[in-house]
Amino acid sequence: MADPTLRHVPIGIAATGTRREFDSMGEIDVPADRYWGAQTERSLHHFDIGNDRMPIEVCRAYGTVKKACALVNAAGGRLPKWKADAIVQAADETISGALDDHYPLYVWQTGSGTQSNMNVNEVLSNRAIQLLGGELGSQAPVGPNDDVNMGQSSNDTFPTAMHIATVLEIDARLLPALTRLTEVIERKAGEWMDVVKIGRTHLEDAVPLTVGQEWMGWAGQLRAVIAEVERSREGLYELAVGGTAVGTGLNAPPGFSVDVAAKIAELTGKPFVTAPNKFAAQGSLDAMVRASAALRGAAVALTKVANDMRWLGSGPRCGLGELKLPDNEPGSSIMPGKVNPTQCEAIMMIAIQVIGHDTAVAIAGSQGNFELNVMRPVIINNVLHAIRILADGCDRFREFSVEGTQIVRETIARHVGESVMLVTALAPVIGYQSAAHIAHEAIEKGMTLKDAALASGLIDEAGFEAAVRPLDMVGQGLAGA
Amino acid sequence: MADPTLRHVPIGIAATGTRREFDSMGEIDVPADRYWGAQTERSLHHFDIGNDRMPIEVCRAYGTVKKACALVNAAGGRLPKWKADAIVQAADETISGALDDHYPLYVWQTGSGTQSNMNVNEVLSNRAIQLLGGELGSQAPVGPNDDVNMGQSSNDTFPTAMHIATVLEIDARLLPALTRLTEVIERKAGEWMDVVKIGRTHLEDAVPLTVGQEWMGWAGQLRAVIAEVERSREGLYELAVGGTAVGTGLNAPPGFSVDVAAKIAELTGKPFVTAPNKFAAQGSLDAMVRASAALRGAAVALTKVANDMRWLGSGPRCGLGELKLPDNEPGSSIMPGKVNPTQCEAIMMIAIQVIGHDTAVAIAGSQGNFELNVMRPVIINNVLHAIRILADGCDRFREFSVEGTQIVRETIARHVGESVMLVTALAPVIGYQSAAHIAHEAIEKGMTLKDAALASGLIDEAGFEAAVRPLDMVGQGLAGA
Amino acid sequence: MADPTLRHVPIGIAATGTRREFDSMGEIDVPADRYWGAQTERSLHHFDIGNDRMPIEVCRAYGTVKKACALVNAAGGRLPKWKADAIVQAADETISGALDDHYPLYVWQTGSGTQSNMNVNEVLSNRAIQLLGGELGSQAPVGPNDDVNMGQSSNDTFPTAMHIATVLEIDARLLPALTRLTEVIERKAGEWMDVVKIGRTHLEDAVPLTVGQEWMGWAGQLRAVIAEVERSREGLYELAVGGTAVGTGLNAPPGFSVDVAAKIAELTGKPFVTAPNKFAAQGSLDAMVRASAALRGAAVALTKVANDMRWLGSGPRCGLGELKLPDNEPGSSIMPGKVNPTQCEAIMMIAIQVIGHDTAVAIAGSQGNFELNVMRPVIINNVLHAIRILADGCDRFREFSVEGTQIVRETIARHVGESVMLVTALAPVIGYQSAAHIAHEAIEKGMTLKDAALASGLIDEAGFEAAVRPLDMVGQGLAGA
Amino acid sequence: MADPTLRHVPIGIAATGTRREFDSMGEIDVPADRYWGAQTERSLHHFDIGNDRMPIEVCRAYGTVKKACALVNAAGGRLPKWKADAIVQAADETISGALDDHYPLYVWQTGSGTQSNMNVNEVLSNRAIQLLGGELGSQAPVGPNDDVNMGQSSNDTFPTAMHIATVLEIDARLLPALTRLTEVIERKAGEWMDVVKIGRTHLEDAVPLTVGQEWMGWAGQLRAVIAEVERSREGLYELAVGGTAVGTGLNAPPGFSVDVAAKIAELTGKPFVTAPNKFAAQGSLDAMVRASAALRGAAVALTKVANDMRWLGSGPRCGLGELKLPDNEPGSSIMPGKVNPTQCEAIMMIAIQVIGHDTAVAIAGSQGNFELNVMRPVIINNVLHAIRILADGCDRFREFSVEGTQIVRETIARHVGESVMLVTALAPVIGYQSAAHIAHEAIEKGMTLKDAALASGLIDEAGFEAAVRPLDMVGQGLAGA
Repeated sequence: MADPTLRHVPIGIAATGTRREFDSMGEIDVPADRYWGAQTERSLHHFDIGNDRMPIEVCRAYGTVKKACALVNAAGGRLPKWKADAIVQAADETISGALDDHYPLYVWQTGSGTQSNMNVNEVLSNRAIQLLGGELGSQAPVGPNDDVNMGQSSNDTFPTAMHIATVLEIDARLLPALTRLTEVIERKAGEWMDVVKIGRTHLEDAVPLTVGQEWMGWAGQLRAVIAEVERSREGLYELAVGGTAVGTGLNAPPGFSVDVAAKIAELTGKPFVTAPNKFAAQGSLDAMVRASAALRGAAVALTKVANDMRWLGSGPRCGLGELKLPDNEPGSSIMPGKVNPTQCEAIMMIAIQVIGHDTAVAIAGSQGNFELNVMRPVIINNVLHAIRILADGCDRFREFSVEGTQIVRETIARHVGESVMLVTALAPVIGYQSAAHIAHEAIEKGMTLKDAALASGLIDEAGFEAAVRPLDMVGQGLAGA
Repeated sequence: MADPTLRHVPIGIAATGTRREFDSMGEIDVPADRYWGAQTERSLHHFDIGNDRMPIEVCRAYGTVKKACALVNAAGGRLPKWKADAIVQAADETISGALDDHYPLYVWQTGSGTQSNMNVNEVLSNRAIQLLGGELGSQAPVGPNDDVNMGQSSNDTFPTAMHIATVLEIDARLLPALTRLTEVIERKAGEWMDVVKIGRTHLEDAVPLTVGQEWMGWAGQLRAVIAEVERSREGLYELAVGGTAVGTGLNAPPGFSVDVAAKIAELTGKPFVTAPNKFAAQGSLDAMVRASAALRGAAVALTKVANDMRWLGSGPRCGLGELKLPDNEPGSSIMPGKVNPTQCEAIMMIAIQVIGHDTAVAIAGSQGNFELNVMRPVIINNVLHAIRILADGCDRFREFSVEGTQIVRETIARHVGESVMLVTALAPVIGYQSAAHIAHEAIEKGMTLKDAALASGLIDEAGFEAAVRPLDMVGQGLAGA
Repeated sequence: MADPTLRHVPIGIAATGTRREFDSMGEIDVPADRYWGAQTERSLHHFDIGNDRMPIEVCRAYGTVKKACALVNAAGGRLPKWKADAIVQAADETISGALDDHYPLYVWQTGSGTQSNMNVNEVLSNRAIQLLGGELGSQAPVGPNDDVNMGQSSNDTFPTAMHIATVLEIDARLLPALTRLTEVIERKAGEWMDVVKIGRTHLEDAVPLTVGQEWMGWAGQLRAVIAEVERSREGLYELAVGGTAVGTGLNAPPGFSVDVAAKIAELTGKPFVTAPNKFAAQGSLDAMVRASAALRGAAVALTKVANDMRWLGSGPRCGLGELKLPDNEPGSSIMPGKVNPTQCEAIMMIAIQVIGHDTAVAIAGSQGNFELNVMRPVIINNVLHAIRILADGCDRFREFSVEGTQIVRETIARHVGESVMLVTALAPVIGYQSAAHIAHEAIEKGMTLKDAALASGLIDEAGFEAAVRPLDMVGQGLAGA
Repeated sequence: MADPTLRHVPIGIAATGTRREFDSMGEIDVPADRYWGAQTERSLHHFDIGNDRMPIEVCRAYGTVKKACALVNAAGGRLPKWKADAIVQAADETISGALDDHYPLYVWQTGSGTQSNMNVNEVLSNRAIQLLGGELGSQAPVGPNDDVNMGQSSNDTFPTAMHIATVLEIDARLLPALTRLTEVIERKAGEWMDVVKIGRTHLEDAVPLTVGQEWMGWAGQLRAVIAEVERSREGLYELAVGGTAVGTGLNAPPGFSVDVAAKIAELTGKPFVTAPNKFAAQGSLDAMVRASAALRGAAVALTKVANDMRWLGSGPRCGLGELKLPDNEPGSSIMPGKVNPTQCEAIMMIAIQVIGHDTAVAIAGSQGNFELNVMRPVIINNVLHAIRILADGCDRFREFSVEGTQIVRETIARHVGESVMLVTALAPVIGYQSAAHIAHEAIEKGMTLKDAALASGLIDEAGFEAAVRPLDMVGQGLAGA
């Protein structure tokens, strides 16, 4: 008898009401127009908590896992090619997002993610059955456990999907957004590299630097963030798949883990490999905790940058006033004409959220027991959410605030002119204590630094002019030497 | 001329394409079938970040704020009654949820919440205009700033809406769910108050208590949580409204703050009052930080309870096995017949999420500057989300796990019988060191406690039987004396 | 035979080398000049970790517990009066701090605090033996377990000592320091209640308030903090003592818990009572978690206050410059004459430390199992440390910064004069949109608000002068209405 | 005139009472037997907060910074060789710890660490003066600012000392301790690689693995931790020194940053280099935040390992009982013979502390402003404390718990024999649903798996024996394939 043939059936089930599905606990009705089966339905019923859904990126990444396993199983002769073909098509539809509506589960579910694995198994089973002309809910000829899940467990595939989803989101969203933001900051730094401004330490007037140098400081923080986020992918490239239930690979054939990881690498174009230690890979989520730490590092640096920008733009008349941030919207429902640094505020709030998420991830990461960490859904939800809001936040911040930020040259120049801290340049000439005396006099008596210096008798005008030259005071560039 | 009359116009705008709206920055197109205006549209454009929306509970609470202000303004003769009537109807529609689709803004926006205040002002303005037969977008005869926002600022009304929304959610969701859960635990504690079981400290066998006592311990933790959550509302009852832009009440009439708070109390049935110190109420969000701490306290206690339950239910053959948790769904995609404590895991993950949220709230709460804390949206989003998932999580945990949990009497009895720690009852009779000697012997030689005790020659059988009576060892009840 | 008599023996052991002590595991040498015994010595050996010692406040509080138990045991006829007298004297010496050198244990030890309980039992045993003329290390006539620990377990007494120590430290250190700080802020607020200054929201110029109002905002935050810290003691007043090993009160006589709590209340003058639910009191440390949250609330508020102060004092020439903070020390090793807001920085760092401590406390609080939470030492160490640095930090901040802070009237007046945001007072007169137009013109063209207003033709000079009166704009006081 | 000669003067000042010292703010008395000067004394006075002292490792690392700068300054002809020699000797004495008593400052001080920099400058100045036969307190011939601090600022040297101290502590303490612990775990894993045990997921019985595999899972987590801690040093190798006050290198000669970093590398034997971006290096402490994240990663992994061990050792009769942990001390003051997993508890508490510290570090790291992050002392104190307690904790945990842990073969074997989850091996033979049926029957009816399987008629004895072979079920090793 010839193998069943894959039919061309568009996505969708033309049915209303309910359909009978079953699992090892018995039968249950599911919506007739959905591909999911009994275990998905049970989960929806038991975990109706808030409105947090398993991130769709996890479900799509699971499509890649299932596709890779089907291909490897078929190549190994364990799964008939026609079954594999059907599973692969359904998996591709999952990967593309075309089946998104069939992945409805909540984040708050079993801590292993088994219900989401079964959701994928059930959807792929039923879609494959449909493509093969079978009866939905019959689990034949393509069963959710025996075929779609062949050689797999939730315990190894769910963290695999977590890693894939996280890497893809980092690469597709976060790194580009961080890079775009950094490039704009670097470009503007270049434009203003010669504009001397007063430095501030402890919020207090300090010696000068240039606007460009200050902006390069921010860029330098962000470049380091980018490098750290990139590096945090290394642990994520290691995949648990093949470890099955407890890391031993029971019910998976020899070589399965290596082959599936290689197939996933091929399908995604990312350097995924099999995890060298499946017991660690399933008993912990340490690579996710480390990736989360990199996201937190981004939050820490972005807070500094956005906070500096809003402070430098404060005013317009009673603040520091050295920057002019774009006016995007009216700032107040009561104060006419008010404009606020709202993009800075948004990115700062996002950063706080990410720090909070990271705390949750770390706690969850510590709570594994024996062969499994069952805090997976909370970890993946926090990590993917952090990536998303950081990435979008960086784009909006860049687009609507950083790009349009201008410098207020008069204010910047006035601050340099008024500051007393240029006295520092006198210290190597007349000594720290004498210079301090001049500074105290100037501040106390409201004199200019020059007047106070000359009045002190410790230096003459020529000496003063030779030493106190703001442009010379900033001259050694980024490396400070 | 007669005052305009309120018409009966159902909710909805029969228009397609866009409508021109304006604000102080100029004109902008908005979707023609939406009530919102220019500032909402600008915010949607500038803050397209992730998919986190301002919690609808805040928008609905804002309906209460606007209604109360309109009524007080009308009573004070500052707002014509016909305008107030129109605003009140639109506010009532907001409160009821009928206008939910018109509150689309993101969480990540201006830190003051001004854009959400303007969203409400704009929707109420346009809906009121519609009810009065005016032209949408004309801001006449009911303007978003001059009428709907009369005597108000975002700076005082947004924290007011935060407080209202939080109190309502605590009362409607969290306290009932916590109470239901606690009552079930107490009921089951009562059923098992006489079942003696082995106690465990440091995870190690200890002296006995009863199953009921153990469950009452959990109930006691939850009762304290309920009391703390209730108490955390006290700071939330104090409302900033009336402080306007910076707490001075500029542009609000004398008595406005007191009157509006009283009106809000009347409308909600909750004991809201005006905040005694508007500068603190707007410059900080300390009451929210404290409320968040109470939620965290719930998370801490729930973690203990759920963790104990899943451990006591561990097995079925290689764990502690003293409880039998309900089988809700197949537990494994690979291990047939496996059942897991998934509701416990869900509530533990929720608890971790709440601790992370609380960290974010605390950080955000510390970042106010001068007359305003501009970390409001991140705070309210975390607090309301925490309430929601705690409440739903408690309900599911109760419904699908605690209610159906049974005790395994044979295992419980076997553990009591085997334990050596009942030796503690001998200590007052023969001294601690002698008793310790017996215990060590029993453990080392694999003897029963009684055999070891008699073999020691330190006590005879009658003495042993008189001292080591498990039921007598648990007898002093909850207070321990 | 007459009862042994208490001798007058000064504290101290005139011996060198080592002394033999024993416990249920055998014999061990201890330093001959120390009162501690075998279990303390074992703990020192096994837990040589860092240099964090069990807070001495816990050991002293344990003195109170032991004294109360001895008195109750003696009154109940279970402990001979002469033994009780000896124990009480040793306990009093512990309470007074005279025996501090004999409590050397590390924080990182058994999670129940048993080793610190035994440290106290051993020291009191040996000191009592010394007072009674016995042989040190003989455990006779006063044994550490059978006499000093009579009717007690570490499981109930350690949390009791934690609660006592925390309440005493809150009352002796934190509340007075917070109150002193708040009073100084209130006093200075009073002095400057009429000094009009520019308000700032989103760091941007806003409508005016007075310096006194701004300071009262800070005071309002701190008053709420004080109230919350006071309230957090309520849970701490409930004592576990009497629950013994697992909460059942095994080996403690009826009434023991109530009597000991009453005795502790009498000895300390604080309203301690027996915990109504010993299983909750020993299985959790929820009252400590809640007390920690109150400390965190203090950290959050103090951050706001100190941050505002340092920003308002920033400059001297290129910052906001509205406050002049005291010059306590040279601010820079390289910039002569620089003075920095170092007390503000110290209190902000302390606040961050307290938030970190609180996170640790919450995690630890969630990690109890069954009848015991064995994360006690980390919790008490973080809580007591937080109290200490908050209290001392508040005192130094007050003494060396807040007390000596002055206002810079010229700068404050100049800011009010230059600000455009006083336009808000025109909004009720000419409408929000018209007022916004004037504000935008003023800012864009660098005009004064008045010039821009008159140039707009929307209001005449008399109207302007009548509306824009800074002093009138701040007039409704703290309640904002 | 010949250069002054360095005399042989032992450390110490033979004086009592006080000595007059001065700085730019005037004169002040210091203890006559201490080398420190005016600014140290002012700091002691103003920051008497708790008892947290600047970690001595920072002061010693500062010795290296000062030595390197003196050598570079001398080589550049800016500092006379005889001055440099004196500074170098004093610096060496600081590095060796011989001057520890002269570094008394509190953690809670200026956020830049300036006071600790001046403490070092003053001590080195006075010690150098002493060595040169000058008058203490005269600041001649070796001045604290002009000579010891030549070409330096606190702003660049303090983070340099932070990085050096952190790297040295990681290398000297943490990495060796982590490695020793991991090696012991790996050794014991090897010993027990063939001992089949039951796996546990969700705390529930799962399919088997070997004891050695489980231990290798722990080792795998720790190996990843070690790699991450090692890698976290990369950012720490980059030193700010040379950036001086604001990153521009003002008052430092060209090449200074590169030369000093090279000298520090030479002196320490670590690959330190100059930071490529001084503005980022001084405005942020991002490298410290990242290093802290690596420590947190250690905490997360150690929690898992210690928690598993204590659970597997729980009992002795009513727990899991598969491991026997060493008996180090009596576990209870009331329950004779009780032994607890106290080393596991200590390491878990340490881990919680480290997570709390890390939260503080992240918050502090986000709070830089402009050219300086002034949260340095709180960051370095938390990071160094975390390193210390992790390192010592790992050593004690290894020495007193892991080394002596034994397996309880009978219990392990009994669990394997009783478990039903070996049914998983039947799934590939008879299908998942049939296997699930057998498992449910066995559990419900209390049958062995084999009896239930045969009773089901789905498989015969030969088939059962061929499929269900525990040793074969664990056979694929670490990689799971």
